[in-house]
Amino acid sequence: MKKLINNAESAVKDSLRGVEAAHGDLVKVCYDPDFIVRAKSPVQNKVAIISGGGSGHEPLHGGFVGFGMLDGACPGDIFTSPTPDQMEACTKAVDGGAGVLHIVKNYTGDVMNFEMAQELCESAGIKVKAVVIDDDVAVKDSLYTTGRRGVGTTVIAEKIAGAAAEAGKNLEQVTEICSQVNKNGRSIGIALSSCITPAAGKPTFDLGADEMEFGIGIHGEPGRTRMKHGPVKDLVEKMANAVLSDLPFNKGDNTIVMVNGMGGTPLIELYIVYSELVAIMQKKGIAVKGKLIGNYITSLEMQGCSITVVKASDEMLSLWNAPVHTPALRWGM
Amino acid sequence: MKKLINNAESAVKDSLRGVEAAHGDLVKVCYDPDFIVRAKSPVQNKVAIISGGGSGHEPLHGGFVGFGMLDGACPGDIFTSPTPDQMEACTKAVDGGAGVLHIVKNYTGDVMNFEMAQELCESAGIKVKAVVIDDDVAVKDSLYTTGRRGVGTTVIAEKIAGAAAEAGKNLEQVTEICSQVNKNGRSIGIALSSCITPAAGKPTFDLGADEMEFGIGIHGEPGRTRMKHGPVKDLVEKMANAVLSDLPFNKGDNTIVMVNGMGGTPLIELYIVYSELVAIMQKKGIAVKGKLIGNYITSLEMQGCSITVVKASDEMLSLWNAPVHTPALRWGM
Repeated sequence: MKKLINNAESAVKDSLRGVEAAHGDLVKVCYDPDFIVRAKSPVQNKVAIISGGGSGHEPLHGGFVGFGMLDGACPGDIFTSPTPDQMEACTKAVDGGAGVLHIVKNYTGDVMNFEMAQELCESAGIKVKAVVIDDDVAVKDSLYTTGRRGVGTTVIAEKIAGAAAEAGKNLEQVTEICSQVNKNGRSIGIALSSCITPAAGKPTFDLGADEMEFGIGIHGEPGRTRMKHGPVKDLVEKMANAVLSDLPFNKGDNTIVMVNGMGGTPLIELYIVYSELVAIMQKKGIAVKGKLIGNYITSLEMQGCSITVVKASDEMLSLWNAPVHTPALRWGM
Repeated sequence: MKKLINNAESAVKDSLRGVEAAHGDLVKVCYDPDFIVRAKSPVQNKVAIISGGGSGHEPLHGGFVGFGMLDGACPGDIFTSPTPDQMEACTKAVDGGAGVLHIVKNYTGDVMNFEMAQELCESAGIKVKAVVIDDDVAVKDSLYTTGRRGVGTTVIAEKIAGAAAEAGKNLEQVTEICSQVNKNGRSIGIALSSCITPAAGKPTFDLGADEMEFGIGIHGEPGRTRMKHGPVKDLVEKMANAVLSDLPFNKGDNTIVMVNGMGGTPLIELYIVYSELVAIMQKKGIAVKGKLIGNYITSLEMQGCSITVVKASDEMLSLWNAPVHTPALRWGM
């Protein structure tokens, strides 16, 4: 294993120190328990939004803390859920009196811990709601999940819910739009290579020299099928079919699309994937009104990509386009 | 070789089609010869700036075309210089009557072809100046270079020169500030793994399971030494020493710092590198006034990173902070 770390144990904290050094104008990093909040927290009378999950998916979630998106993020150890006390401390740090929304990716540990944190915070008099993201069409249940896994739609939900909160919507309204994004979002991922967690020091799974995993999870969990590596055109067609047929997306729909790198995929390849995907969607009469192309929800150094498509109402598109200023996503300011 | 491409021959064009589909609001892609210009080109009476080089380093350069940065970019084949006719066509497309600056990374092919393009354009009555970036402290001469290679400082030079042009500076002034950035910029890179070009289909070089290449070039060219992989703290100290002692950077200097991923390095690791680097600079009393952390000048899927430090005058810092709106870099708008 070759990684730019000091050791497996300190990697997450060492990285948080880098976030603190780089983005002190935007965020504050708290330690023991570890969490990231906006530099000026809490924002009084605004609904606050936090998310969290295992580390190793950067920039998710810490990179999305800032104006117009998250108020806080709880990084667990690599691919390990943060603890309820992290979530509780973060929730308390961001609550400005209008309540807090927890955006939770559907993994058993995350869901359980966020539920415990919600109870702890509600006992302390804070209004908390939760939306569980479960957008991965690859498999029904998996190694870490009951039901569908939560993947790329999380990024889009955090952006849109964040803009709604910034616009002054109340907790019920922010929760509702976040839930709507999840209900209208679908994703699928593929891997060309495995990731290596620092603790394990070896690939999470083995792939043959000409194989790829179709429907990969963001922790290297198995997908639908192991298939031969071939031209990207055929692959994207298969990915697009899996995603577009699931909601289903129909002619005339407006969408937000993300072509996401898993961490080790060159940008030149992600743009090829985007080109193939948009061509398929155009043929079907599905309009792309917003897009992200790059590394947004990663799996350490895994090679591969995921595509996410969200059917977006006019309200969602307006919130998507609203200003955002975080370490990893910035526009309009 | 597993890549998200259709075939080696079409990869660059297929990717350009993705850029066109994604960023049609910002840029226009022209084909045969291939180049990217701002959607509204030329900008009348503004100095135009173009750059170019082999593909495989994305987002460099095409991702930096837009307001406040480049007017145009010429992508060559993977790791291959663009041709003089590409550069000539791009220069002509962006010239708004105030002349055109060519920002050229110091590789023999790029320098030669940009010189030919300059002559062709000057014959056609366009004023052209060139700045050759040669900031890599690793080696004096290399596989593709006489003198030092041009690497990370290119990104910072393109941003600062772009802002100067946007502010209405004339060709001599824009050339001068670009040249100043280069003279005050130093970089070094390391690789934990090789890249694989689509045409070759196999790693450009071999590295042992516990080895890294110190001073790697962005095409996988050999660096200063092959060394054992160890804690990142020791590595960053070695990298920082190589960079900071070269200019040299001194106590009281203001700087812009880039910690750049080579394409296959997780963001969590880049933030660890940034944390270690900033700690070293703080001890030396060198102030970081601007920063970039992420994948900006890559080598396909290579694992590794580079650090770039530019000693920045107040004018440079002001231009650095000026608004920019390109596919890969955006702030202030």
